[in-house]
Amino acid sequence: MNNKSLDMIRADFENYLNQQVANYEAKASSLLSQAMFYSLMSGGKRIRPVLLLASLMSLDSSLVDKGYSTALALEYIHTYSLIHDDLPAMDNDDMRRGKPTNHIQFDEARAILAGDALLTDAFGLVVGDNDLNPDQKSELVAQLSYAAGSQGMVLGQTKDMLAEGQPITIDQLKTIHWLKTGQLFRFAVEAATIISETKNEIKAILMNYADAFGLAFQIQNDLRDLVASLVETGRNRFSDAVNNKATYPSIIGVEASIEAIEDSIEMMKQSVNQLNQVGEGDFSLLLEFIGYLKIESLLTKLK
Amino acid sequence: MNNKSLDMIRADFENYLNQQVANYEAKASSLLSQAMFYSLMSGGKRIRPVLLLASLMSLDSSLVDKGYSTALALEYIHTYSLIHDDLPAMDNDDMRRGKPTNHIQFDEARAILAGDALLTDAFGLVVGDNDLNPDQKSELVAQLSYAAGSQGMVLGQTKDMLAEGQPITIDQLKTIHWLKTGQLFRFAVEAATIISETKNEIKAILMNYADAFGLAFQIQNDLRDLVASLVETGRNRFSDAVNNKATYPSIIGVEASIEAIEDSIEMMKQSVNQLNQVGEGDFSLLLEFIGYLKIESLLTKLK
Repeated sequence: MNNKSLDMIRADFENYLNQQVANYEAKASSLLSQAMFYSLMSGGKRIRPVLLLASLMSLDSSLVDKGYSTALALEYIHTYSLIHDDLPAMDNDDMRRGKPTNHIQFDEARAILAGDALLTDAFGLVVGDNDLNPDQKSELVAQLSYAAGSQGMVLGQTKDMLAEGQPITIDQLKTIHWLKTGQLFRFAVEAATIISETKNEIKAILMNYADAFGLAFQIQNDLRDLVASLVETGRNRFSDAVNNKATYPSIIGVEASIEAIEDSIEMMKQSVNQLNQVGEGDFSLLLEFIGYLKIESLLTKLK
Repeated sequence: MNNKSLDMIRADFENYLNQQVANYEAKASSLLSQAMFYSLMSGGKRIRPVLLLASLMSLDSSLVDKGYSTALALEYIHTYSLIHDDLPAMDNDDMRRGKPTNHIQFDEARAILAGDALLTDAFGLVVGDNDLNPDQKSELVAQLSYAAGSQGMVLGQTKDMLAEGQPITIDQLKTIHWLKTGQLFRFAVEAATIISETKNEIKAILMNYADAFGLAFQIQNDLRDLVASLVETGRNRFSDAVNNKATYPSIIGVEASIEAIEDSIEMMKQSVNQLNQVGEGDFSLLLEFIGYLKIESLLTKLK
């Protein structure tokens, strides 16, 4: 049995994050770091770090301390992507998580630079952790660069921008989101397998789990935007509609979108069953992780 | 004796670069990679890669092949910094090296993303080179992240933006340029010492050499902008003046700027003498490298 719940893992990560930011600010505070940490500390759900740490705890709970710096690097990269996505030339969002976006709080130049700095520093965090061996560090950097770079997240974001106002198919939409959102979820579980030196059989199942989660996560995001047209939230949930972005419900409808989420959840449960059958680790945390999708509350609103 | 001149090293690097880009485009061309490679292949002088490779060749010419992927990573990072610096929210430059800047050729969103992708991929290039051992890869990533990140180049760029229109001292200007420009030159020589596993005594002298080069490089850049107010070039050389940016000649005058370059060149020559005295390697390439500053032609125009 794992001795920690997801909420405890998340709280531990949040404490670690606070400590790291406090250490940084104590020794090297600047007008740049203020902009970096404004967005980093603005109330994210920390889904990617928690997925990494929960996967690592599932594989070998004795190794979980080795996951923190890579989890932090992942949150740095997620945060940079949000800052750049929100820019006027991109999604042009003024609010995120109920607060002004980075370029509104500071200015566009500082927002661009804060994103650049978070992205650059992320790789330093990974290799700066001396609890990892050099092979692990190199492999983590390689996979993180691949997942986030010109054949991963940034490619997905580019395809997303270029698809605006164009008719696209459901397969094209899936590709965009698999690149834009799915790659970092994949990296989260892959990082856990690199740190725990897990065999490929288990890694392959975890990758399937992460892909299913990524798909469900994106569809529920799209549905939540739709719900937000009825129920106001802190963030400007209409922005995708304003930008003429294709979403799952706009292409395949609400019913089929809900079914696709349910299929993905089924796939995640099957993956956890497979992992349990291989018998190396306790993967109940990954079942609990499905709860992060908050599907029940969403369905209540939609039905 | 080294058997290659700087021009040969540069030509070799250019061939390598062409080959790498062709390989990438053959297997993963995208609307994103087109924007990345538009700027990467738009006629840069490749000073940073040449400095890295020339340093490595000076230290141990048998190891020079191990430097290419890190040299390419360095050029990726330099190129991303130019793309982002040229953006409307930053220096707002329309032309660079006689061609439209990235956001003019494509659009702002693609320019932001092309920069992000070059930056992200750079780290993958370093760890993807299996001629380097894992310790070297990790150390190269650590130093590159530090030189380019929130305590290096991006901090320098932030300070530069925030100083616009403000009166600043010569020391503040030096700090800005040491961060913004000097850090990548430092990394170039440091990378060579990491790859050749050079002892700290030699590394320290090389760092002094790189710092002196960085300073001279920046001052000659400022002076060249001044000269360009008389002689038109392909690039909009007035942009720093338009933005009210402080420059060496605007703060300390042309005479003192020329003296500062001459002092820096003297420092570089002294460093090469020291390196030759230590007697491990042939550092004549680093004397030749001073020629990259093209001081003579600049002085002719100024006097």
